[in-house]
Amino acid sequence: IVCCFSRDDEDTFKILIATDVHLGYLEKDAIRCNDSYNTLNEILKCAKTNQVDFILLGGDLFHENKPSRRCLHSCITMLRQYCMGDSPIRFNILSDQTVNFNTTQFPWVNYQDENLNISIPVFSIHGNHDDPTGAEGLCALDLLSASGLVNHFGHSHSVERIEISPILLQKGSTKLALYGLGSIPDERLYRMFVNNQVTMLRPKEDQDKWFNLFTIHQNRSKHGPTNYIPEQFLDDFLDLVVWGHEHECLIAPTRNEQQLFYVTQPGSSVATSLSPGEATKKHIGLLRVKGRKMNLHKIPLKTVRQFFIQDVVLGDYQDLFTPDTPHATKKVEEFCYAKVTEMLEEAERERLGCPLTPEKPLIRLRVDYSGGFETFNTSRFSQRFVDRVANPKDIIHFLRRREQKEDIKGLIKTAAVEGLRVEDLVKQYFEAAEQKVQLSLLTEQGMGKAIQEFVDKDEKDAIEELITYQLEKTQRHLQARGVTTEQDIDAEVAYFGMHWKWSCVDIFCHFNAMNRARAHRLERGDNALDADILDELAEPMDSDEGSVPFPAPTRGRGRGSRGRGGRGRGRGEDCKLMFSKFIEECRCDTRQ
Amino acid sequence: IVCCFSRDDEDTFKILIATDVHLGYLEKDAIRCNDSYNTLNEILKCAKTNQVDFILLGGDLFHENKPSRRCLHSCITMLRQYCMGDSPIRFNILSDQTVNFNTTQFPWVNYQDENLNISIPVFSIHGNHDDPTGAEGLCALDLLSASGLVNHFGHSHSVERIEISPILLQKGSTKLALYGLGSIPDERLYRMFVNNQVTMLRPKEDQDKWFNLFTIHQNRSKHGPTNYIPEQFLDDFLDLVVWGHEHECLIAPTRNEQQLFYVTQPGSSVATSLSPGEATKKHIGLLRVKGRKMNLHKIPLKTVRQFFIQDVVLGDYQDLFTPDTPHATKKVEEFCYAKVTEMLEEAERERLGCPLTPEKPLIRLRVDYSGGFETFNTSRFSQRFVDRVANPKDIIHFLRRREQKEDIKGLIKTAAVEGLRVEDLVKQYFEAAEQKVQLSLLTEQGMGKAIQEFVDKDEKDAIEELITYQLEKTQRHLQARGVTTEQDIDAEVAYFGMHWKWSCVDIFCHFNAMNRARAHRLERGDNALDADILDELAEPMDSDEGSVPFPAPTRGRGRGSRGRGGRGRGRGEDCKLMFSKFIEECRCDTRQ
Repeated sequence: IVCCFSRDDEDTFKILIATDVHLGYLEKDAIRCNDSYNTLNEILKCAKTNQVDFILLGGDLFHENKPSRRCLHSCITMLRQYCMGDSPIRFNILSDQTVNFNTTQFPWVNYQDENLNISIPVFSIHGNHDDPTGAEGLCALDLLSASGLVNHFGHSHSVERIEISPILLQKGSTKLALYGLGSIPDERLYRMFVNNQVTMLRPKEDQDKWFNLFTIHQNRSKHGPTNYIPEQFLDDFLDLVVWGHEHECLIAPTRNEQQLFYVTQPGSSVATSLSPGEATKKHIGLLRVKGRKMNLHKIPLKTVRQFFIQDVVLGDYQDLFTPDTPHATKKVEEFCYAKVTEMLEEAERERLGCPLTPEKPLIRLRVDYSGGFETFNTSRFSQRFVDRVANPKDIIHFLRRREQKEDIKGLIKTAAVEGLRVEDLVKQYFEAAEQKVQLSLLTEQGMGKAIQEFVDKDEKDAIEELITYQLEKTQRHLQARGVTTEQDIDAEVAYFGMHWKWSCVDIFCHFNAMNRARAHRLERGDNALDADILDELAEPMDSDEGSVPFPAPTRGRGRGSRGRGGRGRGRGEDCKLMFSKFIEECRCDTRQ
Repeated sequence: IVCCFSRDDEDTFKILIATDVHLGYLEKDAIRCNDSYNTLNEILKCAKTNQVDFILLGGDLFHENKPSRRCLHSCITMLRQYCMGDSPIRFNILSDQTVNFNTTQFPWVNYQDENLNISIPVFSIHGNHDDPTGAEGLCALDLLSASGLVNHFGHSHSVERIEISPILLQKGSTKLALYGLGSIPDERLYRMFVNNQVTMLRPKEDQDKWFNLFTIHQNRSKHGPTNYIPEQFLDDFLDLVVWGHEHECLIAPTRNEQQLFYVTQPGSSVATSLSPGEATKKHIGLLRVKGRKMNLHKIPLKTVRQFFIQDVVLGDYQDLFTPDTPHATKKVEEFCYAKVTEMLEEAERERLGCPLTPEKPLIRLRVDYSGGFETFNTSRFSQRFVDRVANPKDIIHFLRRREQKEDIKGLIKTAAVEGLRVEDLVKQYFEAAEQKVQLSLLTEQGMGKAIQEFVDKDEKDAIEELITYQLEKTQRHLQARGVTTEQDIDAEVAYFGMHWKWSCVDIFCHFNAMNRARAHRLERGDNALDADILDELAEPMDSDEGSVPFPAPTRGRGRGSRGRGGRGRGRGEDCKLMFSKFIEECRCDTRQ
């Protein structure tokens, strides 16, 4: 369905797509205060220049849930400036608008309001930064929506069931079904997907005539076993998914070969972290849809502050220095100074002839000092770049990745070599290391490959992320069950059991969803990817005793009552059966 | 200029006036949460029903400087609902709108914006609750202004000089000059008035053809010597002043016999305290202006929660109980119970046939228990009214006013009888009573009549207010001078000196202003009120030594360096000369 056409005619929808504008990000920073504002201005200007039919935003228009007065004021001002005016709107809405726009008392698209003269309608879902809060379930976007400046859609008020009802648009002969789902905590949405609680409604007639466009604001990359939304969860009748939330600009549509739809990830228009993803050149998209064909033209953003990131591993420069070289630390600092200067020069070259690009770039140098090197004083280092870099205070990021990696790798290797069961491994680790951290860390092994995946991904902060993730997750479960956080070892073991069981639910759900996806594909007569699906499956534990292996903390907290698990024997239907017991048990716990 | 006409014709401006809506007040209270919202709705509905030309708001549309999301959302929704639509606007704007509306990037009245279809323009100044803050000097109103829902005017950006440029409106043959001044701290504005830093501009031509309407949001009643704006400060070419900020509804225009203009004080549309002023029945006004004639029709608000307040002095019921009666406290409680029940019954009778009035009234019983009575347990008392009263927790307010009054009165009497100079009085009191409170209290006596006035006013919280006011004022001065608040007696005395000097500045300013006003009147050939003016003058201290009587704390803090004052000898020019020395001295201090 991707094809090269760029002629604008009366049958072609022209849509500006952007996401994660994060308006107000660092608005109090002396240097970067205007970045997010300048770029929203650029985006809206671009929409106007290109005479698009509408703007589609994928969430996080605002960085703060409660944007500052300046932030709201600027946003309102810019929207009024660029999106109101006399250009006629050349498309119609066919769907029930009271369903589409359910957060205002004006449940119709703004351009049909007879009191407003809208030239460019903006359609937006909300993100996790600007999500609805409070008893009224209102988000910052709803202020714009009440003012008639934005059409906020995709807000599901139910936590039981999500029905995504598309906005049905028609321009000439082209029919566009616009689906949206505002941000929902990933784990909850994941579970809702696998429990069949998410439904995408379709127009009754001419189903195959519609171009189906879906906007979502969730984790696309796997932050945890159920802390993301696999593309496979999404209905395969979709044609294009505009994926918000992920900040890396991967705007060129990629085809999901299982679901046969395309995914475009525009990425944020401002870097809100100094991670590699944010260093990718930022773009927005000009999407054309004619009939069921589409074309996505990417437009580089000119007002975005440059961001250069580079990794150096000190151990790789043994010709220059080793930890034992005299004045090694000084030499390392000079080495880093040279690296940063290089980046600055590159930035300057690139900036030539780009008057809209802010003068000082963002610079990050990640320095792996493993192997006995010492860190140098970064505040003194910063001082040397204070006039040339937008983020002088955090240019250098020291890390010692390789040692950490070895630790975990070693552990997993040991488990594999010695044929230990996971529970034994846990016990061993439990005795050897500190308390909380490894507890959270190791419960993850119930998921089979989780840690390994993180390790393999070779990501800087993977381990740390994992630990944080698990700690937070455990915390949440404990709080939900009314357990206080001060507890003895015994209690921790009991929680561990509970947590483990939750992991099992996750696995089961995942498994279930995969099965559903496979069933779908089999219906379509496409089963080439079965292997992949199975590969996607986490390796579950078996439970040959058929009984509840872990007591819930509400029942008993004895240390001896820990249960057992093993690695990856069950698959397919056996697996399903086995987990259904866990699920049943979990439900019992929940009901108590 | 007040006359009885109510025929609407093409030459008659019809203006809805309201102020102090305090939207969002107690929005989290279980009972009163919707009060402010319901009343704004009523006000806007009333404007629509009466087909007014515009709405004029006198500030404090919002209760909070940063209104909650619900609050902003409701406000936007209501304004869009009632103030947009097809009714044509029948008046023109003749003034330079870029001057009138200087807080948006859309500096024109909303109804002239070609992208908005406004049926009822709202003109509003800001109040002290919703005043501009932050580097951008934006207030909550500016969000509405940026959205095109409100015309925010009267925002002066300068602290050096205020030029109030009117919005010049014409309907048929009627010319209306609309002046506005958003809230400014009273003392600062007072000082600016007396320093001739406030100017009201006038149209060059046909000056006597304009009806001059001014909206202000300041203290009208004297909260302290310079902590209010005397009506005399306002230009006498004005025809009507709409006075915001004061919550008591005194909407019927009263004539200022010196300045020859009228003042209407609409009062708040929601009670934000349980003071007598708030118990006055709430109204908004329908103002008609034709030529230079006006008529103000008051409209009772139907959605306002009833508020009954009553005072009882226990000592007045000696036939029922004395402090020595057995079970006196119990009897007092039952007596109060009966009083509250009476009020509730009255409320119920009044509410008959008023379906819009909220069911539970606000009730306040102020119990003067002077003379040895004991207070009873109010939480138990509250419990008995929890289902019938909107404010069960604070129905009863115990006070022992008479003793306090006697104290102060006695003190002042003593001073008069014994012919003490104020400084001696201070010393005496200082030795007799606690430290901070009376210090702040007594510095006020430098103003001559201030305390006496408070006492005479017979206001419940007058003394407390005075103390608070003085404490806060002292605090501010100290902070401004970088003095920490921990200090010994000596230092306090020094502060006292400084404070005293400030009071002198106040007196001088006041004096100066009165002189100006008198000069004005003399020009007009009207000097019948001279006596009044002089009476208005605080009695100043004299300083026969001609030197600086109080050292500033930055110079020396010795106890012995307190200066001297006396009571009311200097008047007129002598007085002026004398104070000019103080002023000079103060300036020196400030420059240091």
